[in-house]
Amino acid sequence: MKTDMTRYLPILTWGRAYNRSALSSDVVAALIVTIMLIPQSLAYALLAGLPPEAGLYASIAPIMLYAVFGTSRALAVGPVAVVSLMTAAALSNIVEQGTMGYAVAALSLAALSGVILLAMGLFRLGFVANFLSHPVIAGFITASGIIIAASQLKHVLGIDAEGNNLLELVISITEHIAETNWITAIIGILATGFLFWVRKGLRPLLKRFGLSDGLTGVLVKTGPVAVVVATTFAVWAFGLSAKGVKIVGEVPQSLPPLTLPSFSPELLGQLLLPAFLISIIGFVESISVAQTLAAKKRQRIDPDQELIGLGAANIGAALTGGFPVTGGFSRSVVNFDAGAETPAAGAFTAVGLAIAALALTPLIYFLPKATLAATIIVAVLSLVDFSILKRSWDYSKADFSAVFATMIITLAIGVEAGVSAGVGLSVLLHLYKSSKPHIAEVGQVPGTEHYRNILRHDVITDPSIVSLRVDESLYFANARYLEDNIHNRVAGDKNIRHVILQCSAINDIDLSALESLETINARLHEMGVKLHLSEVKGPVMDRLKRAHFLAELTGEVFLSQFEASSTLKQM
Amino acid sequence: MKTDMTRYLPILTWGRAYNRSALSSDVVAALIVTIMLIPQSLAYALLAGLPPEAGLYASIAPIMLYAVFGTSRALAVGPVAVVSLMTAAALSNIVEQGTMGYAVAALSLAALSGVILLAMGLFRLGFVANFLSHPVIAGFITASGIIIAASQLKHVLGIDAEGNNLLELVISITEHIAETNWITAIIGILATGFLFWVRKGLRPLLKRFGLSDGLTGVLVKTGPVAVVVATTFAVWAFGLSAKGVKIVGEVPQSLPPLTLPSFSPELLGQLLLPAFLISIIGFVESISVAQTLAAKKRQRIDPDQELIGLGAANIGAALTGGFPVTGGFSRSVVNFDAGAETPAAGAFTAVGLAIAALALTPLIYFLPKATLAATIIVAVLSLVDFSILKRSWDYSKADFSAVFATMIITLAIGVEAGVSAGVGLSVLLHLYKSSKPHIAEVGQVPGTEHYRNILRHDVITDPSIVSLRVDESLYFANARYLEDNIHNRVAGDKNIRHVILQCSAINDIDLSALESLETINARLHEMGVKLHLSEVKGPVMDRLKRAHFLAELTGEVFLSQFEASSTLKQM
Repeated sequence: MKTDMTRYLPILTWGRAYNRSALSSDVVAALIVTIMLIPQSLAYALLAGLPPEAGLYASIAPIMLYAVFGTSRALAVGPVAVVSLMTAAALSNIVEQGTMGYAVAALSLAALSGVILLAMGLFRLGFVANFLSHPVIAGFITASGIIIAASQLKHVLGIDAEGNNLLELVISITEHIAETNWITAIIGILATGFLFWVRKGLRPLLKRFGLSDGLTGVLVKTGPVAVVVATTFAVWAFGLSAKGVKIVGEVPQSLPPLTLPSFSPELLGQLLLPAFLISIIGFVESISVAQTLAAKKRQRIDPDQELIGLGAANIGAALTGGFPVTGGFSRSVVNFDAGAETPAAGAFTAVGLAIAALALTPLIYFLPKATLAATIIVAVLSLVDFSILKRSWDYSKADFSAVFATMIITLAIGVEAGVSAGVGLSVLLHLYKSSKPHIAEVGQVPGTEHYRNILRHDVITDPSIVSLRVDESLYFANARYLEDNIHNRVAGDKNIRHVILQCSAINDIDLSALESLETINARLHEMGVKLHLSEVKGPVMDRLKRAHFLAELTGEVFLSQFEASSTLKQM
Repeated sequence: MKTDMTRYLPILTWGRAYNRSALSSDVVAALIVTIMLIPQSLAYALLAGLPPEAGLYASIAPIMLYAVFGTSRALAVGPVAVVSLMTAAALSNIVEQGTMGYAVAALSLAALSGVILLAMGLFRLGFVANFLSHPVIAGFITASGIIIAASQLKHVLGIDAEGNNLLELVISITEHIAETNWITAIIGILATGFLFWVRKGLRPLLKRFGLSDGLTGVLVKTGPVAVVVATTFAVWAFGLSAKGVKIVGEVPQSLPPLTLPSFSPELLGQLLLPAFLISIIGFVESISVAQTLAAKKRQRIDPDQELIGLGAANIGAALTGGFPVTGGFSRSVVNFDAGAETPAAGAFTAVGLAIAALALTPLIYFLPKATLAATIIVAVLSLVDFSILKRSWDYSKADFSAVFATMIITLAIGVEAGVSAGVGLSVLLHLYKSSKPHIAEVGQVPGTEHYRNILRHDVITDPSIVSLRVDESLYFANARYLEDNIHNRVAGDKNIRHVILQCSAINDIDLSALESLETINARLHEMGVKLHLSEVKGPVMDRLKRAHFLAELTGEVFLSQFEASSTLKQM
């Protein structure tokens, strides 16, 4: 019972050993992360199509809950770019943005995603995330980054534009570009340029002034806050909101409200697939960040428990006015670099954000939306990386085609179609590859007991015997290929009296493959040819015995290929 | 060019060697098959929801076209039970039965299915059919057989009832059972009983009278014809159609008409998925019949050319008033047993059916629909075989769960959902199995250079070295599992300084797995542990070199596991 408790509540493990030194490290990390998260949370709420405060709310309860249930010491949970985009894509097809129904649908999406993650964790289904191949994820994230950046252009230009994919966005922006608000555009472009410079130019500059690495890092992270303060001040001081610059406006001064998602079966039905995709993508992103950081300190991550932690975080988001969340890369790295030692750092961050939600929201009344868009654009363009195309092209055309299709479909149709296509294609390509296993006809290397491919080696064969070695486990997708292969090899050659299947590389035979073996045995029998097996592995042999295949087999089972062919030659 | 011609037109091969002996064998076979096919074709048209003549038409052009393009010598192409059911299921959701639109939609379904099959053949995509596991097909066919039998009960009882699955059918029949027409029911039940007796009781009886096997076989096959003649005569003689017995009625006396399918994009869009499923199921059924029969005469079947043959047959059906067709089991076996030597037997059968369509249709005016339903029920109940449940349960629970789900979903929801679920589950279960490959920690067998699983053998290990052997190729679905496995093994043990991955069983590494290896290498580096490889296969080594992985690798690549661990021990 006790071990079960600590499994499901990792907080019991690290909480017991918590001391003053860990406390001070965690508080410092929390302070830095809080400052970074304020503009980021507001911006991702905007990206998800929600009011800015939803971003703050989505960072408070989820962080707390992850601290209780999660296994990573440094992961920071909250709204992230790709999941926010997927949220917007899922909701925009169902309800109109800006309506009350939209916010409720976002809660429902978070709740559904939380339940899916929790269920996957409890049933230990974390392996489902493995069906996403790394290159496909890389392609998807690059394409998503482009869509996100394109979707924020409207805020930078102060125009209206809509679209769930690059095509729609480009068309919509082109249609409205004449309506550009030039003051907004100047703010947006300056903010974007400044943030790029902070990323690329500020660090070397500060180092030249002899600042320490740590201080440089902190200053670079405060870049977005500086832009927020400067542009907010500018809008207030010069009354720019009266000149058409769109601002954040009134944000309630409140702790996260208690909210309830909708339980309408129709809505939940429409949200089920998006929620599943969001859960999988969010989990994959989160677990790889968690594992990368854990490796640096030789800590362990339990993927199934991570699902539970993220599930709890999303349910928390649904109950406190948020939207779908996951472990984010940049915030987690900042947390880790700032010295966070335990998930308590996350809890302190939550407290910081709660104070911000209570006390600081009046200060952002004049914050221009263009500034938030600029922080998003700069953040997501670091996700865009086309090198995966060249890398996969060089490595394998199958991988390349999956990546390419994922990117094109994501850009041209949308995120849900893109990620579904990527998963589908990866699986199909894998099945295709393993559906045509390497089958070598083997012969004896003269003077030895070894058998090698007759096409590559000078070997001894017997015209009445065909020996075949299959280099793959047998299962439904390759069973018929084996049937065809043996049938065609034997049908054309009247001399053949024995077929020996060398099973040294066969780790498993499923029921389809067993039936194929029975068919092969029966068909060979019709042709007057006997089927023999050699070098069958123990567990496979047990199964064949259990299924009475050995009783049907026209030939024999030999311990070694050498024994098989020398016995049959003498017959 | 010439070899290409004979590849795509197998008729050029057998046609050249055609002689008088083959001719007489083929004519005799054609005669027997024609007699059997007349009632069967009418019945399957009824099952598909079409007028009876459509069944005859669907057997004429398709047989001819298959004779030109197909590679099987004995396969008889035409309407078959499961495909007819799937046709009815696909169309009933779109158009109302009995309308002109229904017949046109059936043509479109055949055309679409023909194009899909043809395209799969030309692009050599026959392997797609391999993704259906044998047990899943067996479960699907059993469930379909039950639905077909249930769907025919309404004709036997002379009532109205509708439904695409067993649930709907049972409810609908229960609702209407009070309306049973007792004369129809008596005809239907007698016909069914008689046909069962012909199958089970007649053969032993005839043998007891000393009839030869061949003659017995022919007499048994004429059972359905006898029932058709007897019940038609009874309805005519006693004027039963006036008493509510539903009859076939007027059937046009005509050769197959030239028809055009609809090219409405909306209709084709709705039919695309059903057409794909019909193509796959039809192809799988057909190819296994063809190969079973070919094996008996040591002939070869080319699966991709079979796709072309079936594609041509379906397009032929679409252009001559038919509906989707495929190679049928019972008709092909009859054809084979009757001595058909070449596809010309099929062509002669087509001639026989054309004569029937021209001359015999007035004779079936009084044929009761209950008789046709009886022939269907008796034919499909031979498809129903629950033994696959026990067999798969005994062999593997994974196979069992796929079969069971396929059957339940087919019965409760319908054929399309059932077969889709079966394919989906088979693939998922396979991915699940291969996503958790066997990873053995190995040690040296004392006094040898062999390395074995430390859990099964008494072996020598070194506390600073972990040697792991992965018994599966590495790809996206198991790459992360390997990451987790190595991470967890190393994170908990501070003594470890080297990890050796023994790659003797790894035939392939995809890009995802390569990235996992890079991650493992980097994470181990963070922990101060080196990663080494041993016994890497040639082609895998080439790829790793091309991807510059070996340059990043913190450790070395050793030719053998023995070399690896003895070198590292000395360090």
